[in-house]
Amino acid sequence: METLKVVKIGGNVVNDESLLLDFLEKFQQLEAPKIIVHGGGRSASELCKKLDIPIKMNKGRRITDADSLDVAVMVYAGLINKKMVASLQALGCNALGLSGADLNTIPAQKRTKAEIDYGFVGDVNAKDINTHFINRLLDEQIVPVFPAITHDNQGQLLNTNADTIAASLAIALSQKYRVTLIYCFAKEGVLRNLDDESSLIKKLNREYFQQLKADGTIHEGMIPKLDTAFEALSNNVQRVVIKNAGNLHQTTGTELSL
Amino acid sequence: METLKVVKIGGNVVNDESLLLDFLEKFQQLEAPKIIVHGGGRSASELCKKLDIPIKMNKGRRITDADSLDVAVMVYAGLINKKMVASLQALGCNALGLSGADLNTIPAQKRTKAEIDYGFVGDVNAKDINTHFINRLLDEQIVPVFPAITHDNQGQLLNTNADTIAASLAIALSQKYRVTLIYCFAKEGVLRNLDDESSLIKKLNREYFQQLKADGTIHEGMIPKLDTAFEALSNNVQRVVIKNAGNLHQTTGTELSL
Repeated sequence: METLKVVKIGGNVVNDESLLLDFLEKFQQLEAPKIIVHGGGRSASELCKKLDIPIKMNKGRRITDADSLDVAVMVYAGLINKKMVASLQALGCNALGLSGADLNTIPAQKRTKAEIDYGFVGDVNAKDINTHFINRLLDEQIVPVFPAITHDNQGQLLNTNADTIAASLAIALSQKYRVTLIYCFAKEGVLRNLDDESSLIKKLNREYFQQLKADGTIHEGMIPKLDTAFEALSNNVQRVVIKNAGNLHQTTGTELSL
Repeated sequence: METLKVVKIGGNVVNDESLLLDFLEKFQQLEAPKIIVHGGGRSASELCKKLDIPIKMNKGRRITDADSLDVAVMVYAGLINKKMVASLQALGCNALGLSGADLNTIPAQKRTKAEIDYGFVGDVNAKDINTHFINRLLDEQIVPVFPAITHDNQGQLLNTNADTIAASLAIALSQKYRVTLIYCFAKEGVLRNLDDESSLIKKLNREYFQQLKADGTIHEGMIPKLDTAFEALSNNVQRVVIKNAGNLHQTTGTELSL
């Protein structure tokens, strides 16, 4: 089986022009087949602010109303995605931007109203991903670049968590490839102390994760990211690594195991 | 030779939700292979206004500075393109949004400073279009949807006239297909009197066009559109028709001939 790399690149890197270019240059050197999934949270928030679109939150969760969805589509699937594709093409990498609506690659379910109505937010299930065309593109040495936008296949675009898209793609494509899923961001990996890059946890298994979660060492945004990452590992994805985007070629970062 | 339809849809239709949906439903019924090219001028201007980005003009020509380019990319390649792709997918049409940077389909030249510096505006030449992947996609019954955004293949996105993109694609793809190029907008076709839809010019050849241009019957934006259209006809494109988007299936509108 050939190895496929699914690389998720976080908003802090995407929003910093020099970090992003450094990442893309390193990504370009990776052997194909490979895929990028990108977020871009802060720049959408900034545009919302400029447009006087209030950022609605409920219990710490962001609500995507129609206006903020439009902004997310413009920023993620438009500006960030096309800039990355143009930069990759300039580096000689045959990139193709793909929202989940394009080729119906990632159909999602609008999140049903539970405690909170999240608005136009989509949940993705790995089994729904249309691997047919993604595999065809990878066969042609094309590099898909996915923004965090999907659709419900009934005409509605949906804002979707980029970590989940990356994990779902990794799981779905593991039927054909040995998949390495790499979460890149601006930190060295999972840290014991967020302010100390030397406090990197080099190896993390599920049991240790539960322990660090229970004692409060790992908290907030890292918890859903790791839940998603372990979900991928339990579903046929070969390797999951969380690391600094600048270290794409080094064997550093946090390596997960079950 | 198989017939390929290249359909350019104008900004007035794209910006009107019900006209757009009506057009997409009719487009979906056309036999493949087929391609959409879309503009979307007004909505980008509106977003520029909301963001206090001044619309710079010089001798009636719009200048695309860095901020207005970002807006064009967000609106054309982001919001409008992805909404159209999602609507087409819901109608069962396997659409794929493609800026000129994606798969390097449309490399362009940044317009050189002549009398005016147009800013980030790209000129397209039919011979530079990468037909290889476009042909592969059409072979798979995929429907490419092109916004009016290209790139210089050195990392810079460029704003590009949608009529020219449509004509360039039509010319480039005429090596493999009998191409019909259809310019759709909110009017019945080329009119003698802009306020009278019944003043449709049903047949227009180059000589008659020169005459109507000379006597002032055809003026302003219609002149470059027709120049581009006749250019396509002189370069191997089989048919060029200018018509109302709602009449996609009817044999109405203005049919051009050399």
